[in-house]
Parts: sequence; structure tokens; C-alpha cells
Amino acid sequence: MGGDTAPHLVVNGTKIAHERFPDVRFLLYGDEHRIAPILERERGLREVCDVRHSDEVIGPEDKPSQALRRGRGSSMRLAIDAVAGGEAGGVVSAGNTGALMAMAKFVLKTVPGIDRPAIASFFPTMRGESTMLDLGANVDCDANNLVQFAVMGAAFARTSLGIQRPTVGLLNVGVEDVKGNEAVRNAGQILKEVRLPFEFAGFVEGDDIGAGTVDVIVTDGFTGNVALKTAEGTSRLYTSFLAAAFRRSVISRLGYLLAKPALEALSQKVDPRVYNGALFVGLNGVVVKSHGGTDATGFASAIGVAVDMVSGHYSDLIVADCEQFSAAVEPVQRAAAL
Amino acid sequence: MGGDTAPHLVVNGTKIAHERFPDVRFLLYGDEHRIAPILERERGLREVCDVRHSDEVIGPEDKPSQALRRGRGSSMRLAIDAVAGGEAGGVVSAGNTGALMAMAKFVLKTVPGIDRPAIASFFPTMRGESTMLDLGANVDCDANNLVQFAVMGAAFARTSLGIQRPTVGLLNVGVEDVKGNEAVRNAGQILKEVRLPFEFAGFVEGDDIGAGTVDVIVTDGFTGNVALKTAEGTSRLYTSFLAAAFRRSVISRLGYLLAKPALEALSQKVDPRVYNGALFVGLNGVVVKSHGGTDATGFASAIGVAVDMVSGHYSDLIVADCEQFSAAVEPVQRAAAL
Repeated sequence: MGGDTAPHLVVNGTKIAHERFPDVRFLLYGDEHRIAPILERERGLREVCDVRHSDEVIGPEDKPSQALRRGRGSSMRLAIDAVAGGEAGGVVSAGNTGALMAMAKFVLKTVPGIDRPAIASFFPTMRGESTMLDLGANVDCDANNLVQFAVMGAAFARTSLGIQRPTVGLLNVGVEDVKGNEAVRNAGQILKEVRLPFEFAGFVEGDDIGAGTVDVIVTDGFTGNVALKTAEGTSRLYTSFLAAAFRRSVISRLGYLLAKPALEALSQKVDPRVYNGALFVGLNGVVVKSHGGTDATGFASAIGVAVDMVSGHYSDLIVADCEQFSAAVEPVQRAAAL
Repeated sequence: MGGDTAPHLVVNGTKIAHERFPDVRFLLYGDEHRIAPILERERGLREVCDVRHSDEVIGPEDKPSQALRRGRGSSMRLAIDAVAGGEAGGVVSAGNTGALMAMAKFVLKTVPGIDRPAIASFFPTMRGESTMLDLGANVDCDANNLVQFAVMGAAFARTSLGIQRPTVGLLNVGVEDVKGNEAVRNAGQILKEVRLPFEFAGFVEGDDIGAGTVDVIVTDGFTGNVALKTAEGTSRLYTSFLAAAFRRSVISRLGYLLAKPALEALSQKVDPRVYNGALFVGLNGVVVKSHGGTDATGFASAIGVAVDMVSGHYSDLIVADCEQFSAAVEPVQRAAAL
């Protein structure tokens, strides 16, 4: 029931996902009186969907604490419960981010060794694709949170991008050891000293995001959220400048027509719908958040992230990495505390 | 003597600036044996330039504290001293940012009511141009710092963009009152309650930077630095994707040729050299930092910022705004402390 055009967004997105992943079955949580008529028209899809009725909906304005207390029968909560009970491999929602995170954390709990879950996503770069976290779950982070994000991000990159030994960079305002705030400097120190199943590349800067210098960019949820949205805003600015440039004269319009197929390939490459679907990492279960303002194509991408994570056994990977990591990091943390 | 190609960068940039501002005179601080031969070839420029010799140079690796202790005879320090002594209206440097800030703060001191100077610059948006601060001088900021940045940023926008009553937004991870960290939430509260010579527009998000939602974006130096560099990196990514798209086929290459004049106008619009030149705001004097990697055209833009600030009496404006602001904000701060 989440997103600006629910439940159409979800049902139509599921239809596209069904074409891509014919073996996947879907449980649709929400108002069956509104979902059934849309599903009725889609014979093939209907066969792989079960509708689970719920009257209750978490609204976009609901606070996470309210959702936790009063949302026990909501479609969002029931969908998360299905993951906890093993009936579903993962959950995808286009609803209230804060409520989804609070309920997912409460129901699924964090993986051993992880204090706080984070939000991770991937994006296009000059080298291909990279991932970044945290994108907004934790506005204040200490060094340990950042170190744990590095572990979770590496596990996410291994599964989502298929990179065996990802490179991980800490986002900072310069690459020298003395740069940045205390949390970033200390996290850099810890990551340098422990043995981990990824390459720690040290500090990276904002322009390394688009350059694709590393596979995983680690930062606090405040900076990550601002960086992600700044990149989106800059893309939109560039697109609007480009459109204006092509409209400038008859000749430039003609140039546009000739280059159109190539330009369309470009816009697909930076299409935010392709990159829709952020994973809540660090939980015992796969939870994917879709943009509320996306369309069916975008929602299908979010489902694709969940399918990848479930079939790639992301949850097992991260548990194993966290165990290995905790064993390696504890002596360093003890030494730092002395 | 600063920048990757000093002193050529500075002399050639000064030449372009001289054509734009024929009434401005220049004091060039540095090694006269290296500066004089370049200047020799530029008869018109030579007449408006005085070379002030210095053997000492602050290097890009020097720490701010070292520069302060040992750089008293350096070209950078002597140029700042000229501003303090009233011989120069402002100083422009392409050298070590940390050293320039430390020395400028030590020599020029901050304006009454301002605890910490910040770095401000302007950039292209869908609506025209906006400004942002802090871009990296202060990685940790409290609510009072952010409030002071808002005042300084508004004064900067008034002078650099010529907007009588600028709109100011606080960069955050959402627009609702509950969003963000403590510093941002408290700064938002204070700015809502005091009467100031600008419009406080509340919280803005990363994508508002490119959209140009407000004239001044206020944030801490960590987030501001990351946001600025993320925008630069995204621009470069988009440019490289665009170039690849045009190279895709003979037809798209032809399309490029037809649209070339329009596309060149676009690239001028987002040319980082046009936006080169960041102002150190909050000091008793005009100090402008140029990118070290820019060219003569970029350095001339940085000189243009300094000329604008001096001729717009920016320093007087900010002192007046700070007085008005301190009177308005003190009762609110006292109330917040109770």
C-alpha cells in the first residue's frame, strides 16, 4: 500500500518483475478490495500472487514510534512478519522509510556484531557501478558504526555487484590521515589495522562517487543522504541544461534527432528507476525500500534487488563476515580503548 | 606562488582579470626572478602590477600550524599582511587552503559576533546561481556556527549575486522539523525565531542544490565539502557518458556536429572555471581561494570574486549584518540555554 500510486504501483511493478523472474512467487499485503480488481486483469501474474488482506496502512506522515506501537496489523508489518516467519524470502516496500526501518529492526533484529542497520544502494559510475551506505538511517555515527557499515557494504557489493573482494573507501573531506571528523579518522585507523574480506582503500572524496574509485563508499546517514540527493539533483540539472541546449536552434534540434538513439541509451544509463531499491543492511532478513515516487519499472528494480539478495544468500554472507570481523576487530578496539 | 602551475597561473590569470577590470592594480607576491620574466612579455599588465619579492613559499603539504609559526616571510603571509595594512583591498591565492585560512584568521581576525570563518562559493542551478557554505573550513559545527554561517552566506549572496533579501536554507536529510542531527535542528529553531535581513526557508535537501530552491545553502564543512565535490563528480560523469553517446555511431557523431554550438554553450554554463573562487567569509578582509588545479581563466574568475567583494563593500555589509543579528539572536540563545 506504499508509494504515491499504490496499489497500482506495486501490482504493475510485480508484473514486470514476474516477467523477469518467472520462478518467484509474490505475497501482496494490503486492501484486497483494491488489489484484486487490478490483479484480475493479469491472468499470468495472478497465478504467482497471493493477496493477504489488511485494512491498516502506515501513512507517510506516521512516526516510526507510532508505527511500532499501533501498526501491528498493518500491511507493512504483516509483510515483515512473513520474512521473520520464513514464509517470504524478503520484503519490498514503497512506504514510509522510518516506519519500515523501525518495524524491520524490531521484528527481524540486527545481525550479531552489528549495532545499527544502514540503508545501502548502488549507482552508476565511470567504472560501472558502486554502492554507498548509510543513505539516511543513522544521522549520527561513531567510528564503530562506520566500521560495521564497511563490513555490511562489502557483503552487499559481493552479492549485488558480484565482486569477490570489493574495495571500500571512507567518505571524507580529503585523503590525508589528519582530515575529517573524529569518527571518520578513528574508523580509518581501525579499518587499516584489521584483516577483513575486502580491500580498505582509505579515504575518498565526493568526486570519487561518480568516478567509481571504490566499490563501496562508507559514510554516516546524514552525509550519505545529502550526497545521494546532490548527485540526483545534479543529474536533473544537467539533463535540463542539455534539453535547453538542443532546443536552441533548428540546427541543434536536427542534431538531437540524429543523436537521439545514442542519447536515449545515455538516459537509460543514468535512469534513477534502474537504480531504485535500497537494501536495509544488517538485519536478519532481506528488506528493500523502493522510492515512493517511482513507477512500475522502478518498483520492479526494487524487487530485483530483493531477488538478488535472497538468491545470493546475502543474509548468510553478512553473518559470516560479521563473525570474522568481530574476531578481528575486537583486539583493535580494546587497544584503542586502553 | 600557489597552484599547480605557479607563477604562470597567477600572472596569466591576472592578465585576463586586467582586461576585465582595467582600473584594478595588482600586487604580486613571490619569487621576482620567476615572476618578472613572465611579466616582461606583458607590457600593459606590467604597468598595473607591483612585484613584491619573497623567497619563502608555503607548500601544499605544510600544516596550518607550521605555516603560522614559520611562514611569516612567505608570499602568502605577506599578501595577507597587505590586506591587514590596508595596502590591498583583498587577497587571492591558489595555494594551501588550510594554511591560507589559518594565517588569514590570525592576521585579519574574525568579524565581531562570528566565532569561525567559513568557505563560501557559488554554483549554477536551474534558477540561475546559488551560494553554499561551509565548504570545508569546519568539519564539526554546532547550531550557533550554522546560524552564523547563514548570516555570512546571506551577506555573501547580497554582494556576489546582488539579491537584496536572499532566501537561506539549512541542508538536511528531510524537510520536517524532526529530521537531522541536533545541530541542524537547533539552528533551524533559532533561525525561525529571529528577525534577520534574509528569508529563512527552513530545511532543504541535497537535490535542492541543483534545483536552486534557495539562494544560500547552509551546512557544516564536512557535508558541504562532500556535496560540492559530489556535484562536480556527477557533472564529470554525465559529461563522459554524453561524449560516449555521441561517439556511438556515424549518425550520432553528425548529430554532435550540428548541435555543437549549443552544446558548447551548455559546457560553458557548467564550466567549473567560471565558478572558481571561494570566499573566506567572516574575516575582517576579503580573502579568496582559487582551486590549485585551475587555469588562467579560472584564476581570473577568482580575482573577479575578490573585485566584486571589495567593490561591493562586503566586509562592511557583513559587520553590519552581524551586529543586527547578534542583537536579535542573543535573547533566543539565552532562552534556549535556560
